[in-house]
Amino acid sequence: MEYTKEELLSARKLIEDKINHTPILQSETLNALTESKIYFKCENLQKAGAFKYRGATHAVRKMKMKSELRSVATHSSGNHGRALAMAARKNGMSCLIVVPDNAPTIKIDGMKKEGAELFFCEPTIEARLEKLKEVLNQREATVIPPYDHRDIILGQSTCAQEIIEEIDDLDAIICPVGGGGLLSGTALAADLLASKVLVYAAEPEQADDAFRSMKTGKIEPVGNPQTIADGLRTSLGELTFPIIRDKVEEIVTVSESEIKSAMRLVLQELKLVIEASAAVSLAAIIKRPELFKDKKIAVVLSGGNVDIDKLSEYL
Amino acid sequence: MEYTKEELLSARKLIEDKINHTPILQSETLNALTESKIYFKCENLQKAGAFKYRGATHAVRKMKMKSELRSVATHSSGNHGRALAMAARKNGMSCLIVVPDNAPTIKIDGMKKEGAELFFCEPTIEARLEKLKEVLNQREATVIPPYDHRDIILGQSTCAQEIIEEIDDLDAIICPVGGGGLLSGTALAADLLASKVLVYAAEPEQADDAFRSMKTGKIEPVGNPQTIADGLRTSLGELTFPIIRDKVEEIVTVSESEIKSAMRLVLQELKLVIEASAAVSLAAIIKRPELFKDKKIAVVLSGGNVDIDKLSEYL
Repeated sequence: MEYTKEELLSARKLIEDKINHTPILQSETLNALTESKIYFKCENLQKAGAFKYRGATHAVRKMKMKSELRSVATHSSGNHGRALAMAARKNGMSCLIVVPDNAPTIKIDGMKKEGAELFFCEPTIEARLEKLKEVLNQREATVIPPYDHRDIILGQSTCAQEIIEEIDDLDAIICPVGGGGLLSGTALAADLLASKVLVYAAEPEQADDAFRSMKTGKIEPVGNPQTIADGLRTSLGELTFPIIRDKVEEIVTVSESEIKSAMRLVLQELKLVIEASAAVSLAAIIKRPELFKDKKIAVVLSGGNVDIDKLSEYL
Repeated sequence: MEYTKEELLSARKLIEDKINHTPILQSETLNALTESKIYFKCENLQKAGAFKYRGATHAVRKMKMKSELRSVATHSSGNHGRALAMAARKNGMSCLIVVPDNAPTIKIDGMKKEGAELFFCEPTIEARLEKLKEVLNQREATVIPPYDHRDIILGQSTCAQEIIEEIDDLDAIICPVGGGGLLSGTALAADLLASKVLVYAAEPEQADDAFRSMKTGKIEPVGNPQTIADGLRTSLGELTFPIIRDKVEEIVTVSESEIKSAMRLVLQELKLVIEASAAVSLAAIIKRPELFKDKKIAVVLSGGNVDIDKLSEYL
């Protein structure tokens, strides 16, 4: 089913007073380095520490309008779980999350802090789905998946909506791609609200499933990717892929060391803590100057949930 | 000479389109932890990485109005030098800076990058003043000191002016105190523009000269303080002290480990890179809950110029 401009705008209206309208920052040093004009959209300063809170809040509020049920469930090792738990709590719902037992402590603590009930399982996608099924056999809850869900995609589109509204004569938006929720929402917003704005994505070479999917025209599985960008280890979804295939200009892949360099630049020059997944876009701009030189580009710094004690391992 | 409301407002007008109007951020986690409502004013996101750019820009622009001379000079090991160099460059002036030879590499590089001409000396205040005198014997330039200067104090007041304008029913503002430029500017703004807002300051126990000066009623020298908060190692000035003595509620001192804990909390929860000097205010709020509980408090995160490679040493 096609998405409409009205649908995007009403998603924004439904959540705009529930989320942070995050700031957009610039750095003269990074502009000089890249010979472009970059607008950094700080979703690391979003509630729950990542853009994921937009989609989760939208999905929870839509569900609240449609159903009497006051319980949501998902499986997650990270930001989606925490965002959904926080959105559920703020909307008076309970939240059940299946968590792989190798999830980072900081992310587990984040979900617990928001009052979610956790169910641990082996760290495979099969075990996660199996465990979720088991939980849903015993407990009634609406499943809200991390990205492949219309209300999630619409919620994530609100980030690009804010960007488009605030920056005149923008040439392009670039964001990371994992499962494609943020990217498909961004592409929809650009297409329906600012048709001259091109949308690019960046992903780790070590998890280049979206790049390969664009080449082959079908969803390529991601395998078992070894990348520090832990938010980008997922494959594209049935709903996100067609949007990306049709509306995204190009997916740029970057190496692990390029991700680390970009993360360091953001820490040093922008004074922002971001997670590795959020650094891929700047890495892509540095890697492919021919695409971005002299352009006005918005970069979505997607999240900031990194364990400070382990920060040096990323640099 | 007394400061007037008009003077403060015209300082703001003179620089407002030259500086970053920095964002104010909140954290539910830190509010819960401190049982207060904290508004973090992000001067770490100011141009040149610190509030110092406000005062430097104001002083340079005032000088430009009054004099034909297009050259400024100062001695600095850090943020003031970089801010002055940047303000000078943007206003078509040259900038001479006397730098102690033990100044951090990142700060030296920052000053060079802004096109300042550097003159190195031994790391004592006597050597700095002697070297500056020597430079001024050979080169004509207006000296712009780091804090004890009316135009610097007025420039620094613009930070609190923005805070007061944006936050309703604020109870207090707290900022760090080193030489007292930021603190005296903040106290003037609160006094003249928002008389119900109390002003507090925080400083390291290891450099508690301002605390002692408040007790004895005269400027106490700082000695040779051993604190990680390198921006706060200076003594109060002849101009800043009387304002602070008359208008500041209390100066709270904090230990080195309390500074580190606060710095870690800001990195982890606010996702912001700040320098140790900027962490003292949050440390003070945590240390003295009886002063701040249930209050609406603005915290000035004064700067973010820290070498990322050495960040772990601070944590």
